[in-house]
Parts: sequence; C-alpha cells; structure tokens
Amino acid sequence: MKINDNYLKLKDSYLFSLIAQKVNEHTKTFPDKEIIRLGIGDVTLPLVPAIVDAMQKAVLEMGNANTFKGYGEEQGYSFLRKAICSYYDKKAVLLNEDEVFISDGAKSDLGNILDIFSIDNTVMIPDPVYPVYVDTNIMAGRRIIYINGNIENTFLSLPDEKIKADIIYLCSPNNPTGAVYNKDELKLWVDYALENKAVILFDSAYEIFIRDKKLPTSIYQIEGAKECAIEFCSLSKTAGFTGTRCAYTVIPHELIRNGIALNKLWLRRQTTKFNGVPYIVQRGAEAVFSDDGLSQIKDSIDYYLENARIIADTLIELNIWFTGGKNSPYIWLKCPDEMSSWDFFDFLLDKAGIVGTPGAGFGSNGEGFSRLSAFGSRENVIAATQRFKMFELKN
Amino acid sequence: MKINDNYLKLKDSYLFSLIAQKVNEHTKTFPDKEIIRLGIGDVTLPLVPAIVDAMQKAVLEMGNANTFKGYGEEQGYSFLRKAICSYYDKKAVLLNEDEVFISDGAKSDLGNILDIFSIDNTVMIPDPVYPVYVDTNIMAGRRIIYINGNIENTFLSLPDEKIKADIIYLCSPNNPTGAVYNKDELKLWVDYALENKAVILFDSAYEIFIRDKKLPTSIYQIEGAKECAIEFCSLSKTAGFTGTRCAYTVIPHELIRNGIALNKLWLRRQTTKFNGVPYIVQRGAEAVFSDDGLSQIKDSIDYYLENARIIADTLIELNIWFTGGKNSPYIWLKCPDEMSSWDFFDFLLDKAGIVGTPGAGFGSNGEGFSRLSAFGSRENVIAATQRFKMFELKN
Repeated sequence: MKINDNYLKLKDSYLFSLIAQKVNEHTKTFPDKEIIRLGIGDVTLPLVPAIVDAMQKAVLEMGNANTFKGYGEEQGYSFLRKAICSYYDKKAVLLNEDEVFISDGAKSDLGNILDIFSIDNTVMIPDPVYPVYVDTNIMAGRRIIYINGNIENTFLSLPDEKIKADIIYLCSPNNPTGAVYNKDELKLWVDYALENKAVILFDSAYEIFIRDKKLPTSIYQIEGAKECAIEFCSLSKTAGFTGTRCAYTVIPHELIRNGIALNKLWLRRQTTKFNGVPYIVQRGAEAVFSDDGLSQIKDSIDYYLENARIIADTLIELNIWFTGGKNSPYIWLKCPDEMSSWDFFDFLLDKAGIVGTPGAGFGSNGEGFSRLSAFGSRENVIAATQRFKMFELKN
Repeated sequence: MKINDNYLKLKDSYLFSLIAQKVNEHTKTFPDKEIIRLGIGDVTLPLVPAIVDAMQKAVLEMGNANTFKGYGEEQGYSFLRKAICSYYDKKAVLLNEDEVFISDGAKSDLGNILDIFSIDNTVMIPDPVYPVYVDTNIMAGRRIIYINGNIENTFLSLPDEKIKADIIYLCSPNNPTGAVYNKDELKLWVDYALENKAVILFDSAYEIFIRDKKLPTSIYQIEGAKECAIEFCSLSKTAGFTGTRCAYTVIPHELIRNGIALNKLWLRRQTTKFNGVPYIVQRGAEAVFSDDGLSQIKDSIDYYLENARIIADTLIELNIWFTGGKNSPYIWLKCPDEMSSWDFFDFLLDKAGIVGTPGAGFGSNGEGFSRLSAFGSRENVIAATQRFKMFELKN
C-alpha cells in the first residue's frame, strides 16, 4: 500500500489560517477595536426572493409522493441547462443543452476536469493565481510552467510562442487581481491554443461583474474558442450561492483531442464519479436566470460594484497603483512604501483595523501586493476608506 | 496534449440504456400492458416531514441577511458531524467529529478517495459488483484483481492469504446481491487487511436495512477496523436522498499508511477539490438523525423491507434460489430453468411485464442471475409476485 506521494509535495496552505491567527491575536490585544474585513472572498448578501421562492416550492415537492424526485438527469436537469443556454444566447453564444454540465462548484470541476487529461501534459498557470489550479496539478504530478503577471502587463499575461504547454488556465475577471482580458487579448490565447493543440481551462466565475459591453463575458465570444476551451462558471458570486452550491461547465462538441470529444470523456467521468446537484438547488439555480431572478441579482451585483468603486476611487485619490475595482469585485493594489505583502497586512490591521489578503499568498509575483474585496457592507467599506485616508500612504 | 487514455479501456455502460431500450420497444408493441419496474435502484417514498420542515426553515434563513450562510465549514457543518457521531454512538462506535467528512454522495467519495492512493496499488474487487468500483480504478490505470462471489459462498467472498492486494472494496449489505457479512466474516477481512497493511473501502450505504441485531452495521464494530478501513455511508437510501444528495465518509485517525494519516490526506483533497454540501441540505440531513427523523425514516424502511419480504416469500414458495430479501432492499436470484441473465430479463418483460436487472451487468459472476429491488410501491410488488406465480418457474 502506497499513498499518492505527490500530496507530500504540496505546500501547506497557511494563508487563510495565518490571517485568522493574526486577526485573533489582534482582537485579544484590542478587544474594543472594530475590525473591518476586506480580505473576504465570500458573499454577504442573502439569496434573492426569486431563488428563495423556487427552493421553498421545490422542498415541498420533495415531501410529496406525487412530485418527489430521486436521481436526476445525468448532466443536470434539462430545465436548468436550458436556462443556462438562454443566458448564453444573450451573450451571442449558441450552445446545445448537452454541452452544459451542472455541478456543485467551479472549484470541484476545475480540479476534477484533470481526470480526463494525461498526467504527461504540461500545464501553464499565471502567477499570481487561485491556488486550486496549482495544488490540483501537483496532486496529479503534472509539470507546471508559471507565467508572470506584473505591473508591466497589468497582470494580464499573454502567450509567448517560445513557451509550449498543453493545458492553460485563464481566469477573467481575475481572482486575485481583478484584471479583465479584452477580446483582442483573449484572441491571442485562443490562437495560441489552436496552434499548439492546447486546451484552455477558462474560469469565468466573476463574469457577472463585467459591465463594460466591449469586454468578453465568455471565451466563446472569441472565434475558434469552441475548438480549444472549456468554460467553468459558478453561481457562487453570480447569485450568492457560496453556501448553496451550484455551478456549470461548458464543453463544446467541437473540442476534440486525440480524436475523442472531451464532452464525451467528461460525461463518462461525471456519470462515474458524481451523482448530480440537489433538485432543490437546481430549481433555485433555474430561478437565477428568470427575469425576476436576473433583475434581483443585478441589484446585489450593483451593490458590490459600488463598494469596489468606492475603494478604487480612494486608491486613485491616494495615488496608489491597482488593478480591478471595476468589472470585478476585487482590487489588487501595490503595497505602499515598498512594504512586503505581510508587512502591509500587519500595518493595515494594526493601524487601521482592516483585514486584507496578502498578495504573496497567491504566488511569488503577488509579493508586494494586497487583495481587497468588495463583498463587505457599504458601511464597512466607507469606514475602511476613511481610515485609509488617515495615513500618508503612497507607492 | 494527450487525453487520459485509461478512459479508452472502459467498457461502455450499456446495462441501463439497454434495459431502457428494451422496455421502450415493449411499451410500443404492447401499449396497453402495464409495466412493473422491479429493477430500479432508486427510492420512491418522499422525504419525511422532519426533513422537509428543516429544509423549509433553512431556505428562509438563506433569504435573510442576518441568517444567510456563505461558505460552510470545511468538512461539513459541525451540527451535522455531531449528529452523525451520535448515530454511531448507538452502534457502540465512538468517533471524533473530525473523523467525519460530509459530501454530496457515497459514489463521489468512493471514486474520489482514490486520489490519495498511489496508482501502483493493486485493487481487490468482488464480482458481481457495483460498477463504480471497477470503472474508477480503470480510469486511474490501477491493477484489479477480482474475487468470486457465487452460490457456494452465498456471494460473500472471504480473503485468501495467497492473493495480495492493497485496496479492498467491500459492500455490506451488498449491492447487487443483498448479502450481508456477519461479524466473524468481517473480522477475517479486517485481519487480512491489518496483516497486509491494506486499506478496506467499506461501502455501508444500505446499513439502515439491517434489522438483525447480530449483524454489523459498521465495519468499526469489528476490532482493529479503525486501523485499516474507511467507511462510506449515504443518506440516499437511508432517508430517500437520491435527489437531495448528502453522504458521509469516516476516516479514523488511527488509519495511517507510509507514516501519514489518511484523514489528513483526504482533508487536503476535499479542501482543494470540493467546497461542501448546501447548507439547506445539511440542515435536512441533521433532521434525519433527530428523534422524529429517525422514527419517520424507520417507517419508510419498514415499507421497503416488507416489499422485500413479499418478494422473498414468493421465491421460497417457487423454490428459486436467492440471497438478500432481508436486512437489504435487494433480492438476487438464480434465473430459473438455467436461463441467462438477459434471457430471463426478456422472459420477465415479455411474459409478465416485469422489469428486473440482469445480473450479468454487475460482472461475469452475475451471469445467470437477476437483481430485483424492493423500492417500488406495495401494490406493484404484490402484483409482480402474483404474475410470478402464474409461471412454472424453477431452478
């Protein structure tokens, strides 16, 4: 008996536990000081009425013999996959129902999708990055090439013909940087993937935050993407589903490698190792895409975007370099006065009672940066920016 | 770019699609004949009131800013893990809360658990078997040894010191055979695993059907099992959660291989590739283990067990060999008149309008057998047994 010793190569994920530890110590030392959490990547607004009503109704159906539901459809209920196809219609992306797979989370799918690829593939991952892309590939023993995000490329790395890879992770709007690719930039990636027969794993979990009509909200808005990209999206941030759990993954029929449709491989993976999302949750998810649902979640997204704007305006006023802050719930700023990520974290916590997320936690290129998020309450965001302005911060 | 070509070694899973096709053809030819489905492995009774009430309340909490829940606790909410520990207390099995992991299904966990083991391990799988055990290991490229279930061992295979393996799948009460290991038999497996430093993956999804107090409902009732076994259980059959999705996996701290606690490896796997079960569903699952919940689900299990008894009594009367039918929702019978699995399937469908599941679909040792399930309505079960008796069937 041997364990998978690739697990031993994983770095311990100290980031959020170290943050929690530092915040706890601070609270013990200064029990009366109010802490404002701008590090959090979790939503705070409740589910909107259209979703709550749909789930209430579905719970009652489950308690009645005539309307009870057992095992659901393999890829997710048709009613939900149809609703998602309609949502894509509005993006001018035409999908077939059987190109959409319902799951419990983009995180699950982004990790599990690797099952269908050979361990011999080389993976290209931007740095800084959502740590799940890295850890899931270390677990499988794949070779990883990092590509640099930095101030020069405004944390939007572009392909380099000299560097070859088989699997490419892209996330736009980006977590942690808030940066968003435009169509020309994404086209460069699609062309690179087509030429190298690579597959792009496109994480669009934050697409709902894009308000600039010129920016792509799906990689399939780029010509050729259906032949080289899998798109992962989630209702976690779209509709506050972090605790309700529903996501969807799109694999177009045109995406073929080694003569095999990846859609068919993923269907086999999911029907063997997954049994679907609760009926109740799928009914809630369907309601997200109804007219009422879309209108109600727009109000929530407006609220978070206004928070982001308030933080961004403060940084502009203070002349601090940042990306994100619009078309995204994240603000990625250069720590003032050449502070390291953790020095700035300590500074913010000690001087202002504000909790951010140290950029170094997202990769070596994150050193010297900090991530703030717009998911808090308006009151806290305003209070935080007022505290910011009390210091003479500068880059 | 290469796909995982182990997927190409998978057999197409024709079983249930072929059944559906044959039933469709039959219905087209004889539109007026009523079909009775005894092949189904899905529950039919609705969720009980205690569960419905708990989920109704939880949905409302999610719609209120003061009670809204985002990301939940990593291993599942403490309230649910505590409830499961109390359930194990009644089995005289003491568990710590952090030995219990909440998931969306035993199928998911039984597949995903393989992530933490080396691909070089040899896997031992009984035949006939739940196909997921086989397919998930083929996908990973592991060597599989099959051990025979047959009439001689009443489909309860026991360890053979001459055959070595690292990972052993056991399922009791068994799907598809309905056979249940007693404590002495399980002890032989635990001793074998301890001696060979193997790990037993124990699927106890049907434990709630065990009414004979002498039979073990958890492998941890066997001395030494905590050092060699992982237990997978699900609320799918326990509480009708096939469409609601909640399960739990137990990894005791004592289970250590290569100096590493498997509990810690699984925690790392789950926190990297999974984001938990919906809060609403976890509240429903908690209600299963309340006094009201346990009493209400007992009525549902009683109903299914009575269906099983009616089928079993009919087979005894007809002098047809079978296992299961008590302490299990499944009945595994030898096809009468030396018919093959599919011949008997056709015979049942054509002559009696009854749909069974051909045993051959569960492995080569299933040839010549058929699985019936007790999850239908009482009315249908009685009608089916009356049709059975009209034929002069015999072994």
